[in-house]
Amino acid sequence: MPTAIISTSTTLFPPPSHATSSSSPTLKSPTLSFFPRTLTPKTHIFLHRNTKFHVRSAMAIEKETPESERPDTFLREFDDPSSSSNSGSSVRARFEKMIRAAQDKVCEAIEAADGGGKFKEDVWSRSGGGGGISRVLQDGGVWEKAGVNVSVVYGMMPPEAYRAAKGENSASKPGPIPFFAAGISSVLHPKNPFAPTLHFNYRYFETDAPKDAPGVPRQWWFGGGTDLTPAYLFEEDVKHFHTVQKSACDKFDPSFYPRFKKWCDDYFCIKHRGERRGLGGIFFDDLNDYDQEMLLSFATECANSVVSAYIPIIERRKDMPFTDQHKAWQQLRRGRYVEFNLVYDRGTTFGLKTGGRIESILVSLPLTARWEYDHQPEEGSEEWKLLDACINPKEWI
Amino acid sequence: MPTAIISTSTTLFPPPSHATSSSSPTLKSPTLSFFPRTLTPKTHIFLHRNTKFHVRSAMAIEKETPESERPDTFLREFDDPSSSSNSGSSVRARFEKMIRAAQDKVCEAIEAADGGGKFKEDVWSRSGGGGGISRVLQDGGVWEKAGVNVSVVYGMMPPEAYRAAKGENSASKPGPIPFFAAGISSVLHPKNPFAPTLHFNYRYFETDAPKDAPGVPRQWWFGGGTDLTPAYLFEEDVKHFHTVQKSACDKFDPSFYPRFKKWCDDYFCIKHRGERRGLGGIFFDDLNDYDQEMLLSFATECANSVVSAYIPIIERRKDMPFTDQHKAWQQLRRGRYVEFNLVYDRGTTFGLKTGGRIESILVSLPLTARWEYDHQPEEGSEEWKLLDACINPKEWI
Repeated sequence: MPTAIISTSTTLFPPPSHATSSSSPTLKSPTLSFFPRTLTPKTHIFLHRNTKFHVRSAMAIEKETPESERPDTFLREFDDPSSSSNSGSSVRARFEKMIRAAQDKVCEAIEAADGGGKFKEDVWSRSGGGGGISRVLQDGGVWEKAGVNVSVVYGMMPPEAYRAAKGENSASKPGPIPFFAAGISSVLHPKNPFAPTLHFNYRYFETDAPKDAPGVPRQWWFGGGTDLTPAYLFEEDVKHFHTVQKSACDKFDPSFYPRFKKWCDDYFCIKHRGERRGLGGIFFDDLNDYDQEMLLSFATECANSVVSAYIPIIERRKDMPFTDQHKAWQQLRRGRYVEFNLVYDRGTTFGLKTGGRIESILVSLPLTARWEYDHQPEEGSEEWKLLDACINPKEWI
Repeated sequence: MPTAIISTSTTLFPPPSHATSSSSPTLKSPTLSFFPRTLTPKTHIFLHRNTKFHVRSAMAIEKETPESERPDTFLREFDDPSSSSNSGSSVRARFEKMIRAAQDKVCEAIEAADGGGKFKEDVWSRSGGGGGISRVLQDGGVWEKAGVNVSVVYGMMPPEAYRAAKGENSASKPGPIPFFAAGISSVLHPKNPFAPTLHFNYRYFETDAPKDAPGVPRQWWFGGGTDLTPAYLFEEDVKHFHTVQKSACDKFDPSFYPRFKKWCDDYFCIKHRGERRGLGGIFFDDLNDYDQEMLLSFATECANSVVSAYIPIIERRKDMPFTDQHKAWQQLRRGRYVEFNLVYDRGTTFGLKTGGRIESILVSLPLTARWEYDHQPEEGSEEWKLLDACINPKEWI
């Protein structure tokens, strides 16, 4: 496991689980609430490409600039000197290529299955390096709202965070540590209440080795997952979905699927309800205790499995007839989705409070949602069966 | 100002602003995240009416029990020995009477204006003392969802919180401090997009004097406010609403309205959007630096002003014709309401994480809400005018 490292976020990059938000009881402004406890939130100034920023929080990031065209890469030029050749590319460069190819592949499959909707694209960059491509399909034939985003973020980690992370009381004082993060993140909300919502997110994080602290290594980790959120339970759909996840995992390590399946059930818990957002899948974070090339291949395999895991389910469900009652239940479950994302999801809550691109972060929210007072599905009903599976996670394969 | 005191919540009692949540970067469970920094969250056991509780958080409260009838009072019997007579009642007792009368009055006015909908009532109690009455009108003639709740909570404050609050390094170790909180909380969401949402909340908080720390006094404070959230801006409505708030304030102190109006604008800020939830009103918290009787009268006056501040606006707007476009904009503003309540509202976020009654807490959420990607109202449009007033708070009177 890596030592604690904070990432920044445009919902693609939640901070590692051991570096979640910390707010002081005496601070009124939540914009100052993201310092690890060892940090003093009042006086930070970050040097970033020779520009001084009085930042809103330790990890606040620059405002984005819209771009009219997609660049070949969002990497800084000096990041990957070998990128003009085909061999020896850095993990950063290969990960960016992978997520951009995955974005193209998923969007193409979604448009084909939707049969009418087209993705609207927003490209943006930051002057200090990095940027992203947000693609959103709204009010299509099949999907109510479908967002597929990639982004690349460069930032500076305050030295105290790095030292705190390492658990050292070293007298040496390294400067701020540059970090890099790249990820793909997607939420796909269909219209038909029998067609499930899909979420997936794969990300790679890296720090530079501190120049003024010899021997302290570069840190890196992978995170991500793919999970399914139906409003109605079709066992064959859930089995198919989990089988694809397991197959992707099993190509790399037989322990991955059981471990990441449980991690997913634990992570997507709406704690105040005692229920999961959906029926799970896989989730992992802070992963670096394997070979880096292996993990890059694993993340690639997972991202490439999205279409085969999801589209066959959509094809079966997208045209099923439904009633207003089915739709109302779907809307209630969408309300739960909103509750999870706004209250618990680390990427969302971190992104909202550190100045990420709001529209990219909140594209994960459904087009519409509903909250009824004290709604209780009748025991044994189809709605109850779904809820039961959210309260008591099951083994599907 | 009182020293820092933590209250418990069923959305009625957000903790004081100087005692907001504190979460450790190393803790995965948010249920352990409500200790001030001076506390160690792992080992607390609270004694409560001779029952040991391993609590989920410092201020977690007991599970509620449904009741078939409204009791005359939710106070513990020994709380108010004079309650059988008409004179000399405690502030606790008089505050409970006031909020229950206000609940009756508001519900009566809502049902009369709704012309069809009836409130559904849930009564509940806790074995350690306290309880509440939740009233919800759903899918009425005028209101989509209207909730008016009162509740009374008894709890124990860990001694470290009390000592930290007092900023003392005293060697004396007082035991846990009993506290009492009572409040009324209401959110009223109409159907017609030209009819505004109203929220109001008045609460009273008290600790006992610690028995084993002579000279340390009992603490108390009042909090609350009334604010208006329209989807469309009618200046006459907003002026009327603010005029009623100012009149209530001016009866007590000419500084109240300007101070509490600004506090309201500051509090209901959706920071990641840089906009307020609505067009404000009044908000105050931790108020004890005035005569206690005066503040009780002030809270009473405010609660009693709700009907005259709100119902005339509803009468003007409830039957106005509207289009699907007006409705869609209202739904987008409802989405903002959800964002504020789930991300920032202290009562809601605290209540969700400390085991308050979930359905009472989340009755504040609208029946339906909407999130469109990157929606921007056209400059100069009616939608833009409302948004502008949310971004740039105005003086209305």
